[in-house]
Amino acid sequence: MLQEANSNNLGDQQVAAKQITEEGREFNPEFDDNGLMPAIAQDAKTGEVLMVAYMNRAALDLTIQTGYATYFSRARQKLWKKGEESGHVQKVEQILVDCDQDCLVLKVSVDAGQCHVGYQSCFYRALKKDSDKELEFIAEKVYNPKEIYKK
Amino acid sequence: MLQEANSNNLGDQQVAAKQITEEGREFNPEFDDNGLMPAIAQDAKTGEVLMVAYMNRAALDLTIQTGYATYFSRARQKLWKKGEESGHVQKVEQILVDCDQDCLVLKVSVDAGQCHVGYQSCFYRALKKDSDKELEFIAEKVYNPKEIYKK
Repeated sequence: MLQEANSNNLGDQQVAAKQITEEGREFNPEFDDNGLMPAIAQDAKTGEVLMVAYMNRAALDLTIQTGYATYFSRARQKLWKKGEESGHVQKVEQILVDCDQDCLVLKVSVDAGQCHVGYQSCFYRALKKDSDKELEFIAEKVYNPKEIYKK
Repeated sequence: MLQEANSNNLGDQQVAAKQITEEGREFNPEFDDNGLMPAIAQDAKTGEVLMVAYMNRAALDLTIQTGYATYFSRARQKLWKKGEESGHVQKVEQILVDCDQDCLVLKVSVDAGQCHVGYQSCFYRALKKDSDKELEFIAEKVYNPKEIYKK
């Protein structure tokens, strides 16, 4: 009975915590076991999804403080301000958080060419209809990355 | 010298592999160490980002085969077809992949109410201007989840 009562209490507490996270006005970002959360950069004007990257707490704080998107590079294990090398920065207009507060959408103002491959968005290819193997290009390059990135 | 030559060769091979991944027409999704990749569901009509979830290879295959979004629940460690309980399914119109093929955007056709909390999108709150703590609601609920989800 006590166990049942205890687990009922725990259940209630968990339900209450979930409700605060989902229905509350306090921003309590939930980073994963590696201290990261995915952040989606979406063009504030067109709605196009530009890229997905990861933020740790420091990257999020810098993004909020500076108004420009800063991410955490998992490959290089360091903070990087988007555009620090290419000049293609992201001015953050709005930061949205999802129901369980473990993912962000950044509404950003950008110039032409957000992807290092030369396209406006990193999502420049789509899976062909009725194929699980073949991609088709759905965008044109908007700049030549060789002219921007040093070797 | 041999080592240098070898590492140069490896460098060239890595550059070539990167080029195939980024510029090629072959779909070779890169799952992470847990066998997962993030997938963003975006309303094909309005461009609104609806939710972010994870797919493993089986979820991706089912999504391609059935034409309806299926994800892998990390919490429950099982496949779930979006809407299997709520009825709010996602008909997949197009699957986009990013430059390094480790993230997907699903352009989906949906009815009203994609988030289990009652909103159309999971991103129904934004960080208030000049605050790093306070959220504001930017959407209205479009259905009552208590009427749809059983306890």
